[in-house]
Amino acid sequence: MKLNCDLGESFGAWQMGLDDQVMPHIDMANIACGFHAGDSDVIAKTLILAKQNAVEIGAHPSYPDKQGFGRRSMRLSKDELTNCLHYQIAALEGMAKVHGLTLGYVKPHGALYNDMMIDDAILNTVMEAIARYSTSLKLMILATNEAKQHKQLAQQYGITLILEAFADRQYTDEGRLVSRNVAGSVHNKAAMLAQVNQLLSERTVTTNSGKKVTLNADSLCVHGDNANGIALIHEIKALCINAKR
Amino acid sequence: MKLNCDLGESFGAWQMGLDDQVMPHIDMANIACGFHAGDSDVIAKTLILAKQNAVEIGAHPSYPDKQGFGRRSMRLSKDELTNCLHYQIAALEGMAKVHGLTLGYVKPHGALYNDMMIDDAILNTVMEAIARYSTSLKLMILATNEAKQHKQLAQQYGITLILEAFADRQYTDEGRLVSRNVAGSVHNKAAMLAQVNQLLSERTVTTNSGKKVTLNADSLCVHGDNANGIALIHEIKALCINAKR
Amino acid sequence: MKLNCDLGESFGAWQMGLDDQVMPHIDMANIACGFHAGDSDVIAKTLILAKQNAVEIGAHPSYPDKQGFGRRSMRLSKDELTNCLHYQIAALEGMAKVHGLTLGYVKPHGALYNDMMIDDAILNTVMEAIARYSTSLKLMILATNEAKQHKQLAQQYGITLILEAFADRQYTDEGRLVSRNVAGSVHNKAAMLAQVNQLLSERTVTTNSGKKVTLNADSLCVHGDNANGIALIHEIKALCINAKR
Amino acid sequence: MKLNCDLGESFGAWQMGLDDQVMPHIDMANIACGFHAGDSDVIAKTLILAKQNAVEIGAHPSYPDKQGFGRRSMRLSKDELTNCLHYQIAALEGMAKVHGLTLGYVKPHGALYNDMMIDDAILNTVMEAIARYSTSLKLMILATNEAKQHKQLAQQYGITLILEAFADRQYTDEGRLVSRNVAGSVHNKAAMLAQVNQLLSERTVTTNSGKKVTLNADSLCVHGDNANGIALIHEIKALCINAKR
Repeated sequence: MKLNCDLGESFGAWQMGLDDQVMPHIDMANIACGFHAGDSDVIAKTLILAKQNAVEIGAHPSYPDKQGFGRRSMRLSKDELTNCLHYQIAALEGMAKVHGLTLGYVKPHGALYNDMMIDDAILNTVMEAIARYSTSLKLMILATNEAKQHKQLAQQYGITLILEAFADRQYTDEGRLVSRNVAGSVHNKAAMLAQVNQLLSERTVTTNSGKKVTLNADSLCVHGDNANGIALIHEIKALCINAKR
Repeated sequence: MKLNCDLGESFGAWQMGLDDQVMPHIDMANIACGFHAGDSDVIAKTLILAKQNAVEIGAHPSYPDKQGFGRRSMRLSKDELTNCLHYQIAALEGMAKVHGLTLGYVKPHGALYNDMMIDDAILNTVMEAIARYSTSLKLMILATNEAKQHKQLAQQYGITLILEAFADRQYTDEGRLVSRNVAGSVHNKAAMLAQVNQLLSERTVTTNSGKKVTLNADSLCVHGDNANGIALIHEIKALCINAKR
Repeated sequence: MKLNCDLGESFGAWQMGLDDQVMPHIDMANIACGFHAGDSDVIAKTLILAKQNAVEIGAHPSYPDKQGFGRRSMRLSKDELTNCLHYQIAALEGMAKVHGLTLGYVKPHGALYNDMMIDDAILNTVMEAIARYSTSLKLMILATNEAKQHKQLAQQYGITLILEAFADRQYTDEGRLVSRNVAGSVHNKAAMLAQVNQLLSERTVTTNSGKKVTLNADSLCVHGDNANGIALIHEIKALCINAKR
Repeated sequence: MKLNCDLGESFGAWQMGLDDQVMPHIDMANIACGFHAGDSDVIAKTLILAKQNAVEIGAHPSYPDKQGFGRRSMRLSKDELTNCLHYQIAALEGMAKVHGLTLGYVKPHGALYNDMMIDDAILNTVMEAIARYSTSLKLMILATNEAKQHKQLAQQYGITLILEAFADRQYTDEGRLVSRNVAGSVHNKAAMLAQVNQLLSERTVTTNSGKKVTLNADSLCVHGDNANGIALIHEIKALCINAKR
């Protein structure tokens, strides 16, 4: 079970995330491409950090909305979304090449990620855009009850999925995340570590109705915004290493 | 003598340049990368147009200043300028790849172009940035009396120069452009065509002091902003074709 | 019947609209505030032009989306939308003051205008934001079958509405505009002038079902994007003047 | 001696500065206007905080460069700079009005502040721009050996100056700040408190050559970026209160 984390989300003089403390403990870095966060300097720094820590890198493209941090849905046409993805993936891939790195995957950010998971037209556009860019790029999406159908769809476009689960979020019976606005939707530490253990040992989560749902996740999404987050990454990493033994 | 033109300088709902009328008559398209002009949609359209017309494509990166159209000098550090160039070149190169095109060269835009021609530190940064990106990318700069030194410098970085001359601009004895703010610095049609003819036949321009200066230009920069510009491109193209015979 | 037109929609080096040809023939200028179009220089020029032609000025605020020209819906929270409106109205009002002009009204732009006309929560937010800014500012919205309810709502906030009709757009039985995507939704010249005449003489439009619907519009929205638009403004203006006699 | 501090420099999801901890201890808040930092939401929050703490508010306008945090010089024309200032001052003044506050002064930010202090043409443009906006707005600039001439110039434009000194920065014999790039240019805590004491008791600073130079400052600039900065503001405030007794 690989750990992935959103990184490179500083912008200009503004710092966000403890990237240098997170990078040594994760396997995959989802790097912002400059549309919701990041800029050419932040990207360069993040790539150097990823290289030093031998972390796999992915593009983390977004709707073009820095003020809203890519968290506000924007209705882009299919062409607009395709070009918007190509531009961001290209910028990151080319800069990665400069630093001797190869881009491995794409994980859409924020509102685009959410929209893609509930709107098949958008998911299709994202898959087609990536396939047109390069079928050697994988797409990271949420592991849900529909994982099988999502994999079949990806196969039609000739691309491979990486399915991710969340350590800290409560799930619905459909294998979807309970909205952050709902009380109890974000786990406390004990519940989070229990969820990770269950994911590692059984490949299931216990949903908000008490049901067990199978999630064949390839990766776990973790957060490195503050010292608590870093400490949790350490604990989750330890659980993953133990699980492998 | 190849004709080059700045293209893809529309932005969002704003049109600039008659790209579809220019493209059939030029050899090299300098495509804006989204920092002074252009956006992911404009870039896609411009690439498609370049492909249809089998025009060689170059990246036309700029200081990050859309409101000022990249015409205002900004004091970027060496690292900032390097990353700023890598990001723009990468975005254009990756999108070009999607459309089956190969990026051939880089021509800095506006204030960055001017700064590079008068400040050796900036010229060195630009050359090094391109070399680090890919030594197969050429750099287009102004053909001046210092062309030889510029070529030697480029050679040190392992890159090749494309030297360009301007049809419509008056030159100083140093082989530099007379500032647009000076009366008479922009030629009328007759003077422009005469200058093109002289460049083609003698590889010289007659400067504002009346002296003849040698300019071994590889390319002529033309403008396609309006119907007059298009008509002039036709005439300049005809002169070039005749010169070859 | 006053003519209103969206103006000041150039940006940086990009021109849009024939503002200097439109301004002498209209009564109210809806001036872009820099979020979908316009910038501080364009605003200054537009204000000077409005002053020279003694045209009433309104703020034309938008979602923050220059690339999309404010035509893409963005889900802002109530507070975000309120602050976004205050900032834009303030910027325009203060600059107007510098040029000796008084801001008279607010007309939301593009997607924000459309969203406000179909989503009462957004309409309420817009009204409350304007009332909090200044109850001496009027709000321009679409004249529809619900004009009476809209006026009552505005009254609750202590502000006054300006109801506008469109010369060139086909209407539904609800007094709403037929989407531009529908064939026949934008009138040809003859149909447009007929619609203006009917609005002036009967205060009605004939809808796409052939029904007559009453529209008590205070203002007609006209467009000055090109020479045809300017010619039409002349003709519409003449009809309005004749109607007054 | 009033304490002033740059505030409202967060942007979107990015936090900067401990504004809520600083505000209770300062007299004047220089609020970013959205061009180098801040946005409509940040401005609203900062105004509310200033109101709660009865802090005088000033506009803190900048060159338009968010990525560079307004720290990179940009060559704007006189008109561009004037409009750029008017827009930002207007946006802040209008939002302040909404929150029941009156804008008192303008303090240019970063590179614009530095450029204004070394280039008389820019200082004149800034003064004229403010005077055209409103002669009731004061201008905050650096207290230097040229304070008298600066005051005379301001008088010609009909505006009043607020002269500020820096607690933490070493001075030259000209009463200018030693560049941050020079070793020793930023005082340690002891040197800073000594400089504040000397400013309060003698109205002088001891320069980097050991000379004493008179600085008739009206205000001291303090920084609230982190816990240390907050602690220092407490100590400086205490010194100021003691000095008054």
